[in-house]
Amino acid sequence: MERERLITPVSYRDGAVELLDQTRLPQETVVLKIRDYRELARAIREMRVRGAPAIGLAAAYGVVLGLQDLEDKAQLDRRFREVLEELKRTRPTAVNLSWALERMARVYRRERRRGLARLKEALLAEAEEIHREDIEANRRIGRFGAELLPEGVTVLTHCNAGALATGGYGTALGVVRSAWEMGRLRKVLVSETRPLLQGARLTAWELEQEGIPYELITDGMAGWLMARGEVGAVLVGADRIARNGDIANKIGTYTLAVLAHHHQIPFYVAAPTSTLDPACLTGKEIPLEERSPEEVTQIQGLRLAPAGARARNPAFDVTPHELISAIITERGVLRPPFAEAIADVLP
Amino acid sequence: MERERLITPVSYRDGAVELLDQTRLPQETVVLKIRDYRELARAIREMRVRGAPAIGLAAAYGVVLGLQDLEDKAQLDRRFREVLEELKRTRPTAVNLSWALERMARVYRRERRRGLARLKEALLAEAEEIHREDIEANRRIGRFGAELLPEGVTVLTHCNAGALATGGYGTALGVVRSAWEMGRLRKVLVSETRPLLQGARLTAWELEQEGIPYELITDGMAGWLMARGEVGAVLVGADRIARNGDIANKIGTYTLAVLAHHHQIPFYVAAPTSTLDPACLTGKEIPLEERSPEEVTQIQGLRLAPAGARARNPAFDVTPHELISAIITERGVLRPPFAEAIADVLP
Repeated sequence: MERERLITPVSYRDGAVELLDQTRLPQETVVLKIRDYRELARAIREMRVRGAPAIGLAAAYGVVLGLQDLEDKAQLDRRFREVLEELKRTRPTAVNLSWALERMARVYRRERRRGLARLKEALLAEAEEIHREDIEANRRIGRFGAELLPEGVTVLTHCNAGALATGGYGTALGVVRSAWEMGRLRKVLVSETRPLLQGARLTAWELEQEGIPYELITDGMAGWLMARGEVGAVLVGADRIARNGDIANKIGTYTLAVLAHHHQIPFYVAAPTSTLDPACLTGKEIPLEERSPEEVTQIQGLRLAPAGARARNPAFDVTPHELISAIITERGVLRPPFAEAIADVLP
Repeated sequence: MERERLITPVSYRDGAVELLDQTRLPQETVVLKIRDYRELARAIREMRVRGAPAIGLAAAYGVVLGLQDLEDKAQLDRRFREVLEELKRTRPTAVNLSWALERMARVYRRERRRGLARLKEALLAEAEEIHREDIEANRRIGRFGAELLPEGVTVLTHCNAGALATGGYGTALGVVRSAWEMGRLRKVLVSETRPLLQGARLTAWELEQEGIPYELITDGMAGWLMARGEVGAVLVGADRIARNGDIANKIGTYTLAVLAHHHQIPFYVAAPTSTLDPACLTGKEIPLEERSPEEVTQIQGLRLAPAGARARNPAFDVTPHELISAIITERGVLRPPFAEAIADVLP
């Protein structure tokens, strides 16, 4: 569908990765054309592309960039290692990053003895396959999730788990899109998601494009709207899911989970199985990124707090599995006890 | 003490009400000199002065302004009625506004048969008495509250219930000041309090002035910091307290109360008894102000959301008494069952 093609956060064309610069939305629609993998790594760190699946995808294309100027295989292994390490250390929390890089490394190991041109082709094909699979996974997540929602529901979502955060359809917003297409959705409450305002800037922008009714709220309003009976379900994405069902997601997610629990509102996590980390038994083992305090004390150069103000900036929190009603994946809806349900869908 | 005199949100001198313009802090320290009661009413609506006790105080001085140009008693009653109505309808939620105006009206009724000069003097004396009593109440609240806190506590506070919100010492921040003077306080976590950022702009500014250690957080971080054991107590002010102990306060307060309850952290409300409203049996009867959606979609003219974005902006929420550990007043610490404790301190 033409409308959906409009929102493509990451793509690859003619030797360049094209990123829709998410730090400039919604004011400006700027597409960055990046030909150097180090520049791509910087763009990931600076959150010009963000969202766990989209970061993984960008990194996969970054591997393609990393090798494309090589003309012989003399430095191949060394370069590949450097590229992988540079891309891997951009952001610590989303496991999709190392998952995608691991897929690229498997292809590399399998194909590296062939000709350089053939290897490059195989790597590009793998990145494109990751992209295709991610969109397909999102569409399945969307359908599974929409079926969980009651008729006429108002959904509260946090941050941006939309087309912009993925290959192009969205996880939590994939469910929203499906529910809207099925006529089940009344509207979306969008928490603005301070400090970086991914809700206000990105989720509102996506919903505006699609004509899906929404209202923006500040993060602190969520509890009160739940108490007033205005929220039918909470729907969020995830950056990493541990074997026991604990999830790491954008800071503020845990607060929403506690509030949903208190008000007996279902709390759904929508994420592809590439977000599962078999190496983490519980959420305690998930590395959580801390970012610069200036993201809290300023917005786009506008100072909010007095000069010298100290601020905290944990970028993620962990929601324990006890507070999660279901995890919606492309392989089906996982229900408690999550340890068993997750073991069933792991390869 | 000289340092404390620096923070005086409202005062009266030489026929003018002086307001420290709280919409300009922390960037600029601008004192408005207001001689017309309608201009003062506008300043209250625009939140150049805000905080329940400070609004009451400003309105009391506003009554003084309202009569000061009268040269005979021909229009006295009519003018007094107009002044009272104009000031009363500025903001709906804080009951201290009508409480202070009622005190001024009592003096007016008692003194109106005397000479005009005498009446004006009596009204000014009453406004100054409200001011003096409020600071004294805050100091008592501060002492009572500080005694509730354990040694080395980290307190989380919301919005600004400080000197800027009162006659000059603060309710929740009065407790913080006392606890700091007594050496009991480790630090303050200041939630920024979107949309108008009273935490980031005003509370951080007050604590900076006093040299009290603090860290600014976004509203969505509160739950996660509680889960990590970083919060020893939550301390907030109130705009109105119903007879059963339900309180109205800045939007986001209810979310913090639910979070504190979930984590078994004490949740304290600090407010003078002028905040009690005997006419409200429960929080359901408290009128809650809704403000412009633009306060959510923009910060100081900087657009955060896409053009055309719809937003909600309830300015207050109600926290039910079940979630409140104690209400700290100048007449002592009220404990559940609140209905009885409140009945005991009402006149």
